[in-house]
Amino acid sequence: MSPALPAAGFVRDLRAFAAVPSVSGEPGHAADIRAAARWLAARLRRAGLEYVRLLATPCHPVVVGSWRHARGRPTVLLYGHYDVQPAGPGTVWRSPPFVPTLRGDRLYGRGTSDDKGQLLTHVAAIEDLLRRHGRLPVNVVCLYEGEEEIGSPSLPGVLERYRAEFAADVAVASDTRMRGPGRPALTYSLRGSVALELRIRGPAHDLHAGAYGGAVHNPAQVLCDLIASLHDDDGRVRVPGFYRGVRRPDPAERARMRRSGPDDRTLLRDAGVRRGWGVPGTTLYERTTVWPALTVNGLTAGHQGPGSKSIIPAYATARIGMRLGAGQDPAWTAAAVARHLARRTPPTVRCELRLVHAASPVQLDRRSEAVTAGVAAYRCGFGVPPLLLRSGGTIPAVSLLRDKLGIGTALLGFALPGDRAHGPDESAHLPTLGRGVVTIAAFLTRMGNLLPERGAVRIDASAVSSDPLLSTVRFPTVMRR
Amino acid sequence: MSPALPAAGFVRDLRAFAAVPSVSGEPGHAADIRAAARWLAARLRRAGLEYVRLLATPCHPVVVGSWRHARGRPTVLLYGHYDVQPAGPGTVWRSPPFVPTLRGDRLYGRGTSDDKGQLLTHVAAIEDLLRRHGRLPVNVVCLYEGEEEIGSPSLPGVLERYRAEFAADVAVASDTRMRGPGRPALTYSLRGSVALELRIRGPAHDLHAGAYGGAVHNPAQVLCDLIASLHDDDGRVRVPGFYRGVRRPDPAERARMRRSGPDDRTLLRDAGVRRGWGVPGTTLYERTTVWPALTVNGLTAGHQGPGSKSIIPAYATARIGMRLGAGQDPAWTAAAVARHLARRTPPTVRCELRLVHAASPVQLDRRSEAVTAGVAAYRCGFGVPPLLLRSGGTIPAVSLLRDKLGIGTALLGFALPGDRAHGPDESAHLPTLGRGVVTIAAFLTRMGNLLPERGAVRIDASAVSSDPLLSTVRFPTVMRR
Repeated sequence: MSPALPAAGFVRDLRAFAAVPSVSGEPGHAADIRAAARWLAARLRRAGLEYVRLLATPCHPVVVGSWRHARGRPTVLLYGHYDVQPAGPGTVWRSPPFVPTLRGDRLYGRGTSDDKGQLLTHVAAIEDLLRRHGRLPVNVVCLYEGEEEIGSPSLPGVLERYRAEFAADVAVASDTRMRGPGRPALTYSLRGSVALELRIRGPAHDLHAGAYGGAVHNPAQVLCDLIASLHDDDGRVRVPGFYRGVRRPDPAERARMRRSGPDDRTLLRDAGVRRGWGVPGTTLYERTTVWPALTVNGLTAGHQGPGSKSIIPAYATARIGMRLGAGQDPAWTAAAVARHLARRTPPTVRCELRLVHAASPVQLDRRSEAVTAGVAAYRCGFGVPPLLLRSGGTIPAVSLLRDKLGIGTALLGFALPGDRAHGPDESAHLPTLGRGVVTIAAFLTRMGNLLPERGAVRIDASAVSSDPLLSTVRFPTVMRR
Repeated sequence: MSPALPAAGFVRDLRAFAAVPSVSGEPGHAADIRAAARWLAARLRRAGLEYVRLLATPCHPVVVGSWRHARGRPTVLLYGHYDVQPAGPGTVWRSPPFVPTLRGDRLYGRGTSDDKGQLLTHVAAIEDLLRRHGRLPVNVVCLYEGEEEIGSPSLPGVLERYRAEFAADVAVASDTRMRGPGRPALTYSLRGSVALELRIRGPAHDLHAGAYGGAVHNPAQVLCDLIASLHDDDGRVRVPGFYRGVRRPDPAERARMRRSGPDDRTLLRDAGVRRGWGVPGTTLYERTTVWPALTVNGLTAGHQGPGSKSIIPAYATARIGMRLGAGQDPAWTAAAVARHLARRTPPTVRCELRLVHAASPVQLDRRSEAVTAGVAAYRCGFGVPPLLLRSGGTIPAVSLLRDKLGIGTALLGFALPGDRAHGPDESAHLPTLGRGVVTIAAFLTRMGNLLPERGAVRIDASAVSSDPLLSTVRFPTVMRR
């Protein structure tokens, strides 16, 4: 298939959008978050969407917009998020995280891949369809939230309150990975997620380590003892019940996973490490998608940075993230970890555990209409059928849409393993985003050919390649400036 | 004895001195360090000292000054440090760490106790003696460094290079604790110190914890495993050889330690904790002064602060401090820890260990002239004889003066257990500093009655209370503003 680069306007938009440091996970960015939400709302209006507005939440606003003139056609909910991960230490980035910078066919900057670039494929596809045809093939409602990176705490309330507004036949979320450039992948399984903050408190204030070292239990040391107690030497989590409920793939799926999924070597190369680690007897792909994992995301105690400070710190903190396999319950697992830690905390210190956020795992039926239509759309955008993959990541919205509104989601993501989402030097591969625009337009078009009754939507796959709407969506150049 | 508050000028000086954030352990304070050095040099000149100047070092300058007109009398080296510990999180302080604030009879601020307040007792004593008598009873040379809190890395070179300038019969260092207000204590033993930085490196950059959690070994987790391996459940350090060479107190000293030293309850109250911890079968006073200890001073990895970031961090760092008992060798102990860590580092990560600084332990002969003269001086300043105590802290200068120049040091310190040195809300007890000025003047005066030959200096203790110079040194008021 021919190279499909996004239009100049797309790159200009992504530059402007990614320049706003809409970091939801750090305080002090509230104004940036609002600026990004307003930018996005203006962009939705410019694309031709209607009823565009910001829904207030206890935390960050949800940007919504809709187009509802396709009478008798299905409604598609388009989901994405405009918030981004913290940049992390700035010195590690080759170019500043919030100065989007073009190098080759990639745009570098926090959020270019996760998720601003992928979100903009929706907007570009809608705009293109409206411009060329004056109408959309389906009704659409856009739901772009600003809290995905902090676990979507406000989303359940928003979905309940605006239940009528978000009623849809199917949803599309673009926040997942393909296997590589030109190797699209439709994700059918997401891990659940639990974020905990563990704090160990010792003396009321930092103590002189000369005066008290050896006589007062050190909270930083206790923290390390507790964290060390969470895994055995083989990489298994030692928390009783941690693996309870995991739905194992049947032999047929395991075989498919071996065929379609990344092998250990590929996964290690993508991660930039030489050796794997973790529960023995499983592939790394299984370890990161089927099985739960427990990860220390951060440690904080006492003196940091250069120089030295000879103290017993008053407290020590760890950020702990868990990913849960399909079939597992976040609340139950968080409670199991809490019990384990409480049992092992010595009486010399106080242990505090805070649940920061939690989201359920999702496993889509590979024969559902959302998946089937997604397969057809990818085939149209990339010229090849997508692989069906499990993801190790979490998108809280997907389980919430299922549980609150009964909507199935097609996970049409355009991130690549080399995008470094959440890491320094995050970037988006622009040709892939260009094909993503085509894919989204194809999905909407395919859904437009279907009957609107929910649950009865089916795909006529043979019609995909000859669809007249899609053949016109092409993006020839990358704008450099 | 009557309350002895320092003169108004003393408090004014300490306010000005402690307002300069001369933090040696954090970069970005080089200008502050120089400002504090220059302030101190000006203060020494104003006190009447001569040849006052800043000696350049590879790091922070040493402030020197001398007065050498007491022909035929001994020479006393006065040691202290004008650098301070980092302030730590500002929000924890009741008043800003570098806005010295008077509350009751204490001046609050970083460095008011450790060591600017104690250092100024030297200057005030010299100034007072010179003002009243036009001369000093001994020759003095002042050596005030700016690197004590980072392990005095430049001091060995300075002592070697200016060997002649620093030749002295005895030294006085004021950087140790008493037992309480009105309960002076002369320290005869200091622990050694080793500061290490341990860094575990994993993936080349932070990884998305969803994508790789469970398949890539987490450096933060490995760091915790390694730190947990350093102690057993009883609080003993598990590094082979860690306790090697410790000189245990003989039964007579143990009996004295039980009489003079703080009991467990007092030590825990001073620390502000409810339970002790550490090597069983010893008192907390012994644990913190006779035995070595290993303390995690700080932890740094991945995401910190509020919010969340779902990553496997690329690296994790721990600051580790050790305190060594008399008889132990810092280099040998550091090597033992390095061997222990290297043996336990899994092949999935890289372990880096950096020696930040090291200082030898010191045990003074309780019958030496430095100690005997110190006892007499305290008795004069506080009206009661001092307790002879071990300290758990480290003053690298004391072992360096002994090893490089053959000078014994009288540890005449005026800090109190409640001063919170190294912690937030550090403060100095002004009446104690006032008595400290008298004590230093008494020490210089006593030394002036002695013969100058090194090693033959002896004290006529009976003469102390009737010394005409000392009875005139009184400080009636605290200046409030």
